[in-house]
Amino acid sequence: MKGKVVCFGELLLRLGAPGRQLLLQSPVLDVHVGGAEANVAVSLARFGHDARMVGAVADNALGEAALGELRRHRVDTAGVLGVPGRMGLYFLTPGAIQRPSEVLYDRADSAFARSGGGRHDWPALLRGADWLHVSGVTPALGQQAADGTLAAVRAARSAGVKVSFDGNFRPKLWEAWGGDAPSILRGLMSEADVLFASHRDLQVVLGLEFPQATPQERFAAGAAAAFNAFPHLDRMAATVRVQRSVDHHALSAITALRDGALHTTPAYEVSPIVDRIGTGDAFAAGVLHGDLTGMSAADALHFGVAAACLKHSLPGDFNLVGVADVQAFLSENSLDVKR
Amino acid sequence: MKGKVVCFGELLLRLGAPGRQLLLQSPVLDVHVGGAEANVAVSLARFGHDARMVGAVADNALGEAALGELRRHRVDTAGVLGVPGRMGLYFLTPGAIQRPSEVLYDRADSAFARSGGGRHDWPALLRGADWLHVSGVTPALGQQAADGTLAAVRAARSAGVKVSFDGNFRPKLWEAWGGDAPSILRGLMSEADVLFASHRDLQVVLGLEFPQATPQERFAAGAAAAFNAFPHLDRMAATVRVQRSVDHHALSAITALRDGALHTTPAYEVSPIVDRIGTGDAFAAGVLHGDLTGMSAADALHFGVAAACLKHSLPGDFNLVGVADVQAFLSENSLDVKR
Amino acid sequence: MKGKVVCFGELLLRLGAPGRQLLLQSPVLDVHVGGAEANVAVSLARFGHDARMVGAVADNALGEAALGELRRHRVDTAGVLGVPGRMGLYFLTPGAIQRPSEVLYDRADSAFARSGGGRHDWPALLRGADWLHVSGVTPALGQQAADGTLAAVRAARSAGVKVSFDGNFRPKLWEAWGGDAPSILRGLMSEADVLFASHRDLQVVLGLEFPQATPQERFAAGAAAAFNAFPHLDRMAATVRVQRSVDHHALSAITALRDGALHTTPAYEVSPIVDRIGTGDAFAAGVLHGDLTGMSAADALHFGVAAACLKHSLPGDFNLVGVADVQAFLSENSLDVKR
Amino acid sequence: MKGKVVCFGELLLRLGAPGRQLLLQSPVLDVHVGGAEANVAVSLARFGHDARMVGAVADNALGEAALGELRRHRVDTAGVLGVPGRMGLYFLTPGAIQRPSEVLYDRADSAFARSGGGRHDWPALLRGADWLHVSGVTPALGQQAADGTLAAVRAARSAGVKVSFDGNFRPKLWEAWGGDAPSILRGLMSEADVLFASHRDLQVVLGLEFPQATPQERFAAGAAAAFNAFPHLDRMAATVRVQRSVDHHALSAITALRDGALHTTPAYEVSPIVDRIGTGDAFAAGVLHGDLTGMSAADALHFGVAAACLKHSLPGDFNLVGVADVQAFLSENSLDVKR
Amino acid sequence: MKGKVVCFGELLLRLGAPGRQLLLQSPVLDVHVGGAEANVAVSLARFGHDARMVGAVADNALGEAALGELRRHRVDTAGVLGVPGRMGLYFLTPGAIQRPSEVLYDRADSAFARSGGGRHDWPALLRGADWLHVSGVTPALGQQAADGTLAAVRAARSAGVKVSFDGNFRPKLWEAWGGDAPSILRGLMSEADVLFASHRDLQVVLGLEFPQATPQERFAAGAAAAFNAFPHLDRMAATVRVQRSVDHHALSAITALRDGALHTTPAYEVSPIVDRIGTGDAFAAGVLHGDLTGMSAADALHFGVAAACLKHSLPGDFNLVGVADVQAFLSENSLDVKR
Amino acid sequence: MKGKVVCFGELLLRLGAPGRQLLLQSPVLDVHVGGAEANVAVSLARFGHDARMVGAVADNALGEAALGELRRHRVDTAGVLGVPGRMGLYFLTPGAIQRPSEVLYDRADSAFARSGGGRHDWPALLRGADWLHVSGVTPALGQQAADGTLAAVRAARSAGVKVSFDGNFRPKLWEAWGGDAPSILRGLMSEADVLFASHRDLQVVLGLEFPQATPQERFAAGAAAAFNAFPHLDRMAATVRVQRSVDHHALSAITALRDGALHTTPAYEVSPIVDRIGTGDAFAAGVLHGDLTGMSAADALHFGVAAACLKHSLPGDFNLVGVADVQAFLSENSLDVKR
Repeated sequence: MKGKVVCFGELLLRLGAPGRQLLLQSPVLDVHVGGAEANVAVSLARFGHDARMVGAVADNALGEAALGELRRHRVDTAGVLGVPGRMGLYFLTPGAIQRPSEVLYDRADSAFARSGGGRHDWPALLRGADWLHVSGVTPALGQQAADGTLAAVRAARSAGVKVSFDGNFRPKLWEAWGGDAPSILRGLMSEADVLFASHRDLQVVLGLEFPQATPQERFAAGAAAAFNAFPHLDRMAATVRVQRSVDHHALSAITALRDGALHTTPAYEVSPIVDRIGTGDAFAAGVLHGDLTGMSAADALHFGVAAACLKHSLPGDFNLVGVADVQAFLSENSLDVKR
Repeated sequence: MKGKVVCFGELLLRLGAPGRQLLLQSPVLDVHVGGAEANVAVSLARFGHDARMVGAVADNALGEAALGELRRHRVDTAGVLGVPGRMGLYFLTPGAIQRPSEVLYDRADSAFARSGGGRHDWPALLRGADWLHVSGVTPALGQQAADGTLAAVRAARSAGVKVSFDGNFRPKLWEAWGGDAPSILRGLMSEADVLFASHRDLQVVLGLEFPQATPQERFAAGAAAAFNAFPHLDRMAATVRVQRSVDHHALSAITALRDGALHTTPAYEVSPIVDRIGTGDAFAAGVLHGDLTGMSAADALHFGVAAACLKHSLPGDFNLVGVADVQAFLSENSLDVKR
Repeated sequence: MKGKVVCFGELLLRLGAPGRQLLLQSPVLDVHVGGAEANVAVSLARFGHDARMVGAVADNALGEAALGELRRHRVDTAGVLGVPGRMGLYFLTPGAIQRPSEVLYDRADSAFARSGGGRHDWPALLRGADWLHVSGVTPALGQQAADGTLAAVRAARSAGVKVSFDGNFRPKLWEAWGGDAPSILRGLMSEADVLFASHRDLQVVLGLEFPQATPQERFAAGAAAAFNAFPHLDRMAATVRVQRSVDHHALSAITALRDGALHTTPAYEVSPIVDRIGTGDAFAAGVLHGDLTGMSAADALHFGVAAACLKHSLPGDFNLVGVADVQAFLSENSLDVKR
Repeated sequence: MKGKVVCFGELLLRLGAPGRQLLLQSPVLDVHVGGAEANVAVSLARFGHDARMVGAVADNALGEAALGELRRHRVDTAGVLGVPGRMGLYFLTPGAIQRPSEVLYDRADSAFARSGGGRHDWPALLRGADWLHVSGVTPALGQQAADGTLAAVRAARSAGVKVSFDGNFRPKLWEAWGGDAPSILRGLMSEADVLFASHRDLQVVLGLEFPQATPQERFAAGAAAAFNAFPHLDRMAATVRVQRSVDHHALSAITALRDGALHTTPAYEVSPIVDRIGTGDAFAAGVLHGDLTGMSAADALHFGVAAACLKHSLPGDFNLVGVADVQAFLSENSLDVKR
Repeated sequence: MKGKVVCFGELLLRLGAPGRQLLLQSPVLDVHVGGAEANVAVSLARFGHDARMVGAVADNALGEAALGELRRHRVDTAGVLGVPGRMGLYFLTPGAIQRPSEVLYDRADSAFARSGGGRHDWPALLRGADWLHVSGVTPALGQQAADGTLAAVRAARSAGVKVSFDGNFRPKLWEAWGGDAPSILRGLMSEADVLFASHRDLQVVLGLEFPQATPQERFAAGAAAAFNAFPHLDRMAATVRVQRSVDHHALSAITALRDGALHTTPAYEVSPIVDRIGTGDAFAAGVLHGDLTGMSAADALHFGVAAACLKHSLPGDFNLVGVADVQAFLSENSLDVKR
Repeated sequence: MKGKVVCFGELLLRLGAPGRQLLLQSPVLDVHVGGAEANVAVSLARFGHDARMVGAVADNALGEAALGELRRHRVDTAGVLGVPGRMGLYFLTPGAIQRPSEVLYDRADSAFARSGGGRHDWPALLRGADWLHVSGVTPALGQQAADGTLAAVRAARSAGVKVSFDGNFRPKLWEAWGGDAPSILRGLMSEADVLFASHRDLQVVLGLEFPQATPQERFAAGAAAAFNAFPHLDRMAATVRVQRSVDHHALSAITALRDGALHTTPAYEVSPIVDRIGTGDAFAAGVLHGDLTGMSAADALHFGVAAACLKHSLPGDFNLVGVADVQAFLSENSLDVKR
């Protein structure tokens, strides 16, 4: 079973210090291409689906390089415009032990943000698609990007394409231009069928408090509020992460359905972590894969958390594992060298 | 005490992705020289013994480079012929956390396999030797290689040189040419004095089942069957590995003697693993070192498992530690920086 | 003006020593993807044309990586099949000064050669194409590959798609399986509209001698023989290379038309050379670009030699420059830093 | 003799492709710190003078890294403020043979440009200084930077500190904000004692034509116009560069004095070039060193062109050679290995 | 609050194998600058204090490079003389799992040791200083270095500058020249206000036995003896390290005051360790920072152990974290990626 | 024809800056093993001769690594002792264009120098040898090394083994210990059959002036004096190098025989140079190869200069080319890529 998914968002270049060095401790930067929605697109393409990226990049060698990486992994980039301006960048200082990793964003005023992700012929781009995937990072980039995101989800709703929305709330980005995050995000979530979010996202968006005692209760209460507020919403899902050290996390996941059903997964010990950037996107892609291939919500959740675990073993923003890798994880196959 | 050991088998080039990357995620490959029997030869040379490699490599720059690595570590390569053809290769994707490492063999039709490891003047090559070491990978390469291996072990038997055989059963290699693995391996094991194997190898070779409840009982039963089947066999030994994650194993070892004695070692926690390729060969070399220096079977086993543990800390296929390093491990010396 | 070109041939991985080192002088190999026809495809895609690769790669991580590199540069790889077997490799020792570069082929019995490049639905693959490009390396890989190449050029002829053929005569490959090179190449050249070849290729194929005094006369005589022998041939073109040292060549080009017209270009001093692999393919792609955009034969030749010169400045097999870069070269624009 | 020089301008990070690769051809960037004025400061510090940098950098890890590089080379950075915002970057694709190098600027809206280089206590910063060095890149960054530069040169004039101005005319930067380049530059040059510029800079600034037949005559005419227009100007100097290929230049220099004297140097063949970025700044620093140590204008010019030649042999923006290196060049000492 | 600290000692170059390789397993060495006292100076500079290094380096490119690294991190190097001779080196084989790291010293007869660290105008260098920091490595380098160290601490005592002394007892260095370690160290400790040492150091220096049952009791007894022997001593502090494996330590700290007060910290699990060289110096710098900013002895101890823990996450000898990083550690802030 | 050559001298580690960087411009050093006599041994082994190294290295990981590199290239290292002490090092700053390369020696007081190269059973080591090769660097290391060298050449003379001596005069090394260079070198040259030296070496050793007008006349006069002074001398040979730039030399060679015959070679343009260290040793090895295989003196000289030219194309101290490579150079075979 092969689905078709359209992802709308910004492509970024990650410029990272090698090994566990501080930024520019030695005069070299390792480069990876990323971006919340592009990460989902690549993962879905590696799972065998048709994945199409829509957005805008700088019309220079950096933008072209970013697109090249998506194409390399079979993502269709025909819907990404080259527009004047600069590429969004982020610098990464990889952490270790008890020293957290640090991201230094340098994405203000990017070609994507300036152009609002570009003007697109959405009906054409969405033709035949099963899902449109967007995230809360995109509207946080500015009014134009917020407008562009809203146009995208509304076009999907009109075209009968399901909408997947990943909260990804980034207060600093909103503050930078004074955007009304709750109002804009509410507008977007109102069109979503699936929401990747925690109760904290809903706190921001709906202005509610979730004083429940346990994380599971808070998630359930958040989900209930979401189902109440957003008419199209079918499912809310999130990972739950316990950080024993920067190199060692325990990862599980939880999902709530409109009918009140709640599913959780076991917690997996993930250590020593190679690269945790993009693991949330790997989770979202895993859950969407489950949906596209007809899994139950519980199975899709399990597939998602397994995909997220495996992403921790790979350098870069993309989850380059395939379906067979995730299935091997889930079936507890041998960890021995595969020959 | 210094012994002399002859190893017969194929030299391979390992082409591996750097760090924890997927194969060709970035356009660089790290190269190591390896091969089950060469790994034993190098380890024994580092332990101070005379180690001689016998076999064949491609008569080109790659074959010469492989030999150069053996000589660098004091292995005598005068018995390795340069013959027309290609070098056997294997590509390694290093795993991490719950993502297993993957070996992609590209060794079919190698110069070694085609030539059956070359025609050798075995009486001359074995003169003064204490041991001949071969493994089950070599006969799996094809009829010529199987014939070559049998010729080697028979020459050793005639010359009064003891034979060490490491099971290393690789079903895919046997299937590739339809070789009769049980029959050929039985022929080889019939000449062996020491067998590095588990009950699973004997299941294949002898067609027996080992339904015992515990690993130790299965090993003991396998060993009993082996002593019954193979007239020259004195000792059978194996490592026992529990894989908590790709980066974290617990390693112990077990040995059985013809008189029924069974010895085991403590289990050592090995984490985070640097490179586990060649650890079985490190174990074999450690046990042979024990034998060459007059250790008891229990002490040799302990030396072997310690050598195997240390190999996990070293990149590459070779166990480059020396006797003093293994002794420090066994005497539980300080782990502090040696200054 | 944008054309559509289909290229049929084998993808190879180049494993090269870094810098000017000998092979495995240090334990690292730099990897590039190449192959005579793939190089043409990538160059044409960078020039803005639709380029489609057709053939077969190993259905493993190496084959997938090779395809990924083509997609990265906008080459359509839907026509490349994944088939069982191994990837063709070549090892490169980069030369310097008076020490020639060395290529060590390890491509025998590759997935491509075994499968004859795969079975393809040629009418579908050629739909809308302007050109099919093949080279003499492919039929040299074995009878199956020769048959596959002939099937391709005949399908193009039937479909009214023009055929471009690059001689690339490799005696060692033909000898390896005893193929009748003259006969097979004659069959292929009979279908060609454009031939990238020198008089030496025609000597082999037609069994003629070209005793003329000057290179230009020999080329003209070879071309005359070719136009005589091959009914569809419109144009023959070749580069002329004077090697002052391994790092310093002088490069010009020559072309002959069926009407007897002969065009040459100035000789360009190319020094110090970064990487000369793939420069012949860069020339072919440049000439085809000229044809696709309606240039005169003389202008196309000039564009081709300029593209070939620029390729010498780039590491790897692919000519990654664009049309604007070639035009700048031809218009003798400033060599100063572009800011 | 040891002088004291203050340099005002922006620090940039250069992110360059390794070797002769295209940008992001492989996923690594080499980082160098540069900036026209900082390059002068570092070179003068390496020549043994007190060099002080004044300006502003982003108050983040990138800004701190840039300052660290200056301090490493003994430049005093106490006058560089850390201010909110982003570091100016530029991406470099190193050229080769006939493929020019390309600089992709990503410096718009940098912390320096936004803050106009920061507010400084100029009297304190200039205390005891012999020279203030600024360049035409800085005012091109925006009105605030233009104002800041003017404030700096006026403070120098008031304090009796001589002013050195390097034209560095960059039309694209001026166009980006519509600045009145001629007017602003005229204001700055009016305060200059030494001008590093060609007749083309004066064409822009003074709106004159220089139709003279030879480069030397055009330079002399430009200088005459400059001495006429700028009351404090004592000397104008420039390099003359003939680019035989991207890797091979011939470099000489010319200077004119207010009294009409004109000096030139021999042309030096510079090949194969390692890195030509910063060679103009190396020249300026060399001439200033000559002045600070009491050389004649002709000797200072010769010292400057020698320094510039040597810079071509060094990776990075900085000219890290010392006085002894330049003297060895000038005295035509042996090129043999120094042991 | 910003203090001023002067550090006296030798700068060394560390030449280390990359990754977890053995020394020269591949032909590359990573270089770091270090030295017990320089490590303290850099850490204090990163904490915002004025740090001045005093000593001597070889007057060649290696010495200059070492000084450059200190300046890069804002350490004042005006008090380090360039003297004839060689730089002290050490080669590092990084350990892993149960294979200890190895340091191969190559520092005999260094420029520092020969010159006794240089002749200095101590009153000038100590002007305004709060602390002088020295360690027991320096006097171990030879009689001249011992004399130089004594001169330094006596000058500090005269100038009313507090003295911090880190035991760092290295028997091999003392044996190399037959120095009377107890007598010389006793002389130095007699001038110390703070002593970083364990009971083992005092055993050596005072010739006493500490047969107490627990580590805490032994430390307390050692401290009591120290307070008895050394009139100026106010505080003794040490880390306590349990090495679970080469990659996993548990680290805590203990301090004793003259009034008998004893403080300890919790033990922190540190895993997987990136680089443990310089962690003792990081501890000392942390404690001194506490003192300089008016913390209680208990808080300073806690700050010190936190700084030491964080150092384990950084490659190289220097602890490049800042005060905010240590405070985040102590306040148990999130380990999540900082964005 | 295969000869046997014994080389006596010191093994050194070269620690070099990568690319064309200054020493420690970035924090990495590339390591090569070298030493004048070891370079000759490796080259002869690559030419197919039995080469044996005699001397002493530090009994640590560095010494073992140096020996490993010799063994890799088939040099017999059984005659190299491991003795206490440090390895001799040299740091290399590679030059470019008009910036000369710089060697920073750090070899004083090495294990070799201290032990005088070790005590050896020369009759056993020289058994069956054709040549003993030593150079003027070794006696320059100190009295013990001078004594050791004299013992070696006298043992060769007694054993009827021919002696080859390479002048390699290094004034700084002699000055460091005040050795009487003329007297000691005269003693050594008195035993030599072949001398690699220029008239300048003889000036030093014999105290003569060579005021002849041309280099060829000076060489001839020097040779005449040498034949007069040294009774066993048969041949004197030298390279003649014109350095057009650091990257471009012209290389020829000259030899004189006792009978007065003088032979020269053409001058070869060598550009762009990869690494010129060890080219003199490559020349000596080439000439010795000519002698060992029965070439005329003129042919041997030509072989030597060809070998030296090719060495310039290889990174590292060793000339890793084979006889076929040199023959291809001499027969002016194609410089094209060898496939």
